[in-house]
Amino acid sequence: MSNSLESLAIGLDVGGTAIKAGLVNRRGHVVSTQTIATEANGGVDHVIERMIRLIRALTNEAAAAGSRIEAVGVGMPGTLSRKKGMVIAPPNLPGWRNIPIVKWLSEGTGHRVVLDNDANNAALGEFICGAGRGVQNMIMLTLGTGVGGGMIFGGRLWRGAYENAGEIGHTIIVVGGRRCGCGQLGCLEAYASATATVTRAMERISNGEDTCLRAELNNGRLLTTEMIVSAARNGDALARDVWEETCRYLAVACLNLQHTASLERIVLAGGMSAAGEALRRPVLDAIDQIGSKMLGDPPDIRLAELGNDAGFIGSALSVFEPA
Amino acid sequence: MSNSLESLAIGLDVGGTAIKAGLVNRRGHVVSTQTIATEANGGVDHVIERMIRLIRALTNEAAAAGSRIEAVGVGMPGTLSRKKGMVIAPPNLPGWRNIPIVKWLSEGTGHRVVLDNDANNAALGEFICGAGRGVQNMIMLTLGTGVGGGMIFGGRLWRGAYENAGEIGHTIIVVGGRRCGCGQLGCLEAYASATATVTRAMERISNGEDTCLRAELNNGRLLTTEMIVSAARNGDALARDVWEETCRYLAVACLNLQHTASLERIVLAGGMSAAGEALRRPVLDAIDQIGSKMLGDPPDIRLAELGNDAGFIGSALSVFEPA
Repeated sequence: MSNSLESLAIGLDVGGTAIKAGLVNRRGHVVSTQTIATEANGGVDHVIERMIRLIRALTNEAAAAGSRIEAVGVGMPGTLSRKKGMVIAPPNLPGWRNIPIVKWLSEGTGHRVVLDNDANNAALGEFICGAGRGVQNMIMLTLGTGVGGGMIFGGRLWRGAYENAGEIGHTIIVVGGRRCGCGQLGCLEAYASATATVTRAMERISNGEDTCLRAELNNGRLLTTEMIVSAARNGDALARDVWEETCRYLAVACLNLQHTASLERIVLAGGMSAAGEALRRPVLDAIDQIGSKMLGDPPDIRLAELGNDAGFIGSALSVFEPA
Repeated sequence: MSNSLESLAIGLDVGGTAIKAGLVNRRGHVVSTQTIATEANGGVDHVIERMIRLIRALTNEAAAAGSRIEAVGVGMPGTLSRKKGMVIAPPNLPGWRNIPIVKWLSEGTGHRVVLDNDANNAALGEFICGAGRGVQNMIMLTLGTGVGGGMIFGGRLWRGAYENAGEIGHTIIVVGGRRCGCGQLGCLEAYASATATVTRAMERISNGEDTCLRAELNNGRLLTTEMIVSAARNGDALARDVWEETCRYLAVACLNLQHTASLERIVLAGGMSAAGEALRRPVLDAIDQIGSKMLGDPPDIRLAELGNDAGFIGSALSVFEPA
């Protein structure tokens, strides 16, 4: 009963395999959390039903603790429209086309519901109570299967005119370069995502280059960036090359963002940021090496602090944002 | 006497060779204009003295017409600090180091004085009464000796945390590519500025390729982008190649800005934009060709409308901006 009268938000982070949710207060403190399987194969109605049940469970939990629910924030993979409250066509959720999710969840739970994309919400979470604390201008790069971005300008999420700002992964860094999943040539994502890093390593292994990573493959395992980072740490030349290359591409992305937007901070998040200083340090070194000496204020690069919780925390906090 | 009681601003656009100035009303209407030589060789004090005399002359002109001066806006090449009112180290004005220009001009004229960099002021001018009318989110690329940028987000100039946002010319588009004047490799400016366009043409001419441009050089003339555009128009293959390449690099820059910031409009300004549709059309074609089909809302590319007046008009309008 210590939280008596406190107003809490429910935050959901909906992915292709799991839905993470939590009760969060206005300062980002997590009161409780639940994770369920998305069961995306069950279809749109099935997933919506699961989300409604999850929201009701958390509402009851809040009520039992004497708190009331301010609203529900939902983070989903794009494409979507926050303004319209619609999920449009997320690649990770096949079959979801133009779903008025805000209307459905709001009717199903009685709460005000706010929708945004997961990268924006994760950036908001880190901004308010993670690696972005204390600054007003930051960009968070989410490094995983793809490269996503969330931008905070002047203390507010910047979504852009068409709500799709922050697609840093699809900025071109090598004109005429590697083909990206989006169709363009030379996108950052085609060089510096986890997927691209593994691809670049596999290409060199297929070419017969010597590396301890071959043993992993011979054992029938799929190559991951964790294996590459660990092999690099153990002095494997190929792994070191590939990883340093990834970090160099990320340094280019950071420099480009800094030249464009003059930021206080760039936060590295997502699966690949689990490498920690083995990621941050070589990115900083590469910025120092390739960046213009005229760049008066180099970006302050930090590792994300909230891990997988950034998404639902940010979703919850998004309900407190001015409209 | 028709402007009686109207409040006007004085705008100055200070370049290495000329100072353009004007009396401008709050809606960007130019009441009168004057241009004088900078006489930068005369030193800092000499130029400041000339600026003060120019401001006094325009003040008297306003008074004679029954108008009062709201304030004076000054646009200078960077680096500078708007917040501190200081010119720091502009490459085009040798000898200018840490000049408290706002203090000096304000003491010399009795007016409130506001300083900003020329690219920002030109973007503000186009935003309020040129090619940016009617939108809230735009970026203006100034294409000349270098590639500059000015950004309007949510109807306000975005200067960034360290006041140097918009350095689009130094975003890297070819990792490990051509050396830029800033020291980096592969900057947009090293490929798509007027200087870089001429350099790329000269390289091919030096390699002995056939082109009508050789005649210009044999006549002792310096190659310009105007000559290249005109030769391209007349079917010269080398000129067409070089110009199309420039437009392709600019298309990459536009795509990158669109993916990053989700803009309503991108305005092409500066000397090279005098090419008009011969610039805009191939940039649009290249965006269509190389841009991701996933890019829901392609950038709306327009040509600047105010020409060389954008600078002083924007300088004047900057005094009406909230602080």
